[in-house]
Amino acid sequence: MLKQESNPQLLVVGSVAYDSIKTPFGEIGRALGGSASYFSLAAGYFTQPALVAVVGEDFLPQDLAMLKKKNIDLSGLAVMPGKTFAWGGEYGFDMNSRTTLFTELNVFENFSPALNGAHKNAEFLFLGNIHPALQIQVLKQVKNPKLVGLDTMNFWIESAKDELAQAMQMADVIIINDSEARELTKQHNPLKAARQILNLMQGGEKNLPATLVIKRGEYGLLMFQEKKIFHLPGYPLEDVADPTGAGDTFAGGFFGYLAKTKDLSWENLKLACAAGSTLASFCCEDLGTAKLMNISEADIDQRIFELKHLVNF
Amino acid sequence: MLKQESNPQLLVVGSVAYDSIKTPFGEIGRALGGSASYFSLAAGYFTQPALVAVVGEDFLPQDLAMLKKKNIDLSGLAVMPGKTFAWGGEYGFDMNSRTTLFTELNVFENFSPALNGAHKNAEFLFLGNIHPALQIQVLKQVKNPKLVGLDTMNFWIESAKDELAQAMQMADVIIINDSEARELTKQHNPLKAARQILNLMQGGEKNLPATLVIKRGEYGLLMFQEKKIFHLPGYPLEDVADPTGAGDTFAGGFFGYLAKTKDLSWENLKLACAAGSTLASFCCEDLGTAKLMNISEADIDQRIFELKHLVNF
Repeated sequence: MLKQESNPQLLVVGSVAYDSIKTPFGEIGRALGGSASYFSLAAGYFTQPALVAVVGEDFLPQDLAMLKKKNIDLSGLAVMPGKTFAWGGEYGFDMNSRTTLFTELNVFENFSPALNGAHKNAEFLFLGNIHPALQIQVLKQVKNPKLVGLDTMNFWIESAKDELAQAMQMADVIIINDSEARELTKQHNPLKAARQILNLMQGGEKNLPATLVIKRGEYGLLMFQEKKIFHLPGYPLEDVADPTGAGDTFAGGFFGYLAKTKDLSWENLKLACAAGSTLASFCCEDLGTAKLMNISEADIDQRIFELKHLVNF
Repeated sequence: MLKQESNPQLLVVGSVAYDSIKTPFGEIGRALGGSASYFSLAAGYFTQPALVAVVGEDFLPQDLAMLKKKNIDLSGLAVMPGKTFAWGGEYGFDMNSRTTLFTELNVFENFSPALNGAHKNAEFLFLGNIHPALQIQVLKQVKNPKLVGLDTMNFWIESAKDELAQAMQMADVIIINDSEARELTKQHNPLKAARQILNLMQGGEKNLPATLVIKRGEYGLLMFQEKKIFHLPGYPLEDVADPTGAGDTFAGGFFGYLAKTKDLSWENLKLACAAGSTLASFCCEDLGTAKLMNISEADIDQRIFELKHLVNF
C-alpha cells in the first residue's frame, strides 16, 4: 500500500457508477461505469491515477479489487450509506446518438469531495464531468497543480453557467464534444467556437497556453491553442460495440500520457491525443469497460503507430 | 493554338452548366458551373486539362474566353443547337444539405461524346458524373490510358446499376461521397463499404491497385487501397460561402496533381489528396467558381503546408 500513499501524479474527480447499456448488438446490466472509472482505467496504462469519487454500500468488492489491480489508487474513493450512482442508456443502429433510460444519482447527489494529504500534492488534475461548483471545490484543495483539465456537459452549461465560467478560467485544458462547444458559444463553426472558448479560459495563471480539445465522435478531434490547430481522426473501426465512456477514456489516455511524459510541448500534446484516441477506440470495441481491462502496451503502441500512418503525408 | 492540338495529359468528360445558387449568405444566377467546369478549373493549376462536354448556343463567349484563359483545352467542347444545361439549388444554414430547385438538361440530354484524335491519346482520364453508359463510351475511345478515374451519384446507382458496375470495373480510381458509398453497398461503416467497392472494381487490367476515395464533406476524406488507408481532414474554414462543386474541384486537383507529377505511388496519391482538398477548400470560400478563378500557386502551396501541420504528429 506504500505506493498509494505517495503523491499521485494524476488525480481525477468524477463519477463511479453502475451502468445498464443496451445496443442493437448486446446489452449489460449494472456494469462498472462512470466518468472517473473510464478515465482511470485508461490513465492506468501510463501512470497510477488517484480516483476521487463516491460509491454506495452496494459497490461490489470484486469491482474494487479489479480497479486496484488495474493500477488505480483508490484511497480517495469514499463509500457512503446508500446506493451507487446508476445510469441506463440505449443506442439505436446509429451509434452516434443514445437515449438515457434512467439516472439514479443516489450517493452521488451529496458528493462533496475532500482530498487527503497526498492528493493535495497532485501534479496533474482532471475535473471530470460533475457540477462546476464541485470541480472548483476540488481544484482549490490541490496546492500547486502543474496541469488542470476540465470536462463538462450540456446540463451544466444550462444550469450552472456562472460556476462553469469560473471553472473554465481555472483550467489549462478543456476537453468537450462538438455539440457542447456549439451550445456553449452558440457558434456552429468549430474554429469560431474554439476561439470563443479559448477566450473564456483567459484569466487565471496557466502553466501552458489555454488548450482546447473538441471531440467529434467517429470523426476524431480538433485540438486548439491560440494560433495552433491539430486534427486527429478517430481510429477507424469496422464495428463499434458500445461508445459509452469513449470521451472519458480519451481524457484518461490524454492526461495519463502527459502525467507519464511530463512534457507539455505542443508536439507532445499531439501524442497525448493519439494515446487518448487509441484508448477510446479500444473502449468502443466491447460493452462497458470490458475491453479496457484487456489491452497490452503493445496493443496501444501498435494502434498509435497505425494512426500515424493513417494521417501523416 | 498549337498547345491545344498536342496530346492532353488529362481528359475530363462531364457537364458544363449554368448554375443558380442560393445560400443564406448570398446568391448568383446563371453562373458557370457543372462537374467538368469545376474539375478543369482545379486541374488547370497543375496541367492543361482537356474538357469534353456540350453547351448550347446561349453559352456566353466570355465564359469560353475565361476557361481558355485558365489553361483549359476546349477543343472537345461541343456547341449544339439549344440551351446549356441549367441547374438551380438552395442551401439552408447547414451547408451540408441542399435542395435542388430545378434541373434543365437541355443539350446535355442528347450528349454523345466523340473524342478527337489527340484526345484519344490522353494518359489520364476522368469520367465525371454522367450516365455510366456515356462514361464507358468515352473510356473505350481512349487508346491506352495510364489512369482512369470515375465519379458517380445516387441517381445512377439506382437507375443504371449494371452499366455502373461495368464502368467501375474499368476504373483505377473511384471518387464518391460517403452517402453514395453507403447506398452502393448498403453498408453504413466506411471500412466495410470500402472493401466491398474495392471488390467491385476488380476485373479489368489496372495500372495501379484499385483505389477508392470516400469524401465526407467538412470531415475530409478516406482513401483506400486493398491493405492501405489514408485519412485527410477538410482544410478548416471559418466560413463556407458555397460548397457547390467542391467534390468535382477535389477530383480536379487530385487528377491534375497526378497528371503533373506522373507518380502513382501511395505516398504521391496522398499528396494528390492534399492538392485536391486544398482546391476544394478554396472553392467553398466564394459563390460558384468565383474563388477558383483567383488563386495563386503560392496560395495552394501554403494551404498544403498548413494541412501537413494540421495532421502530422
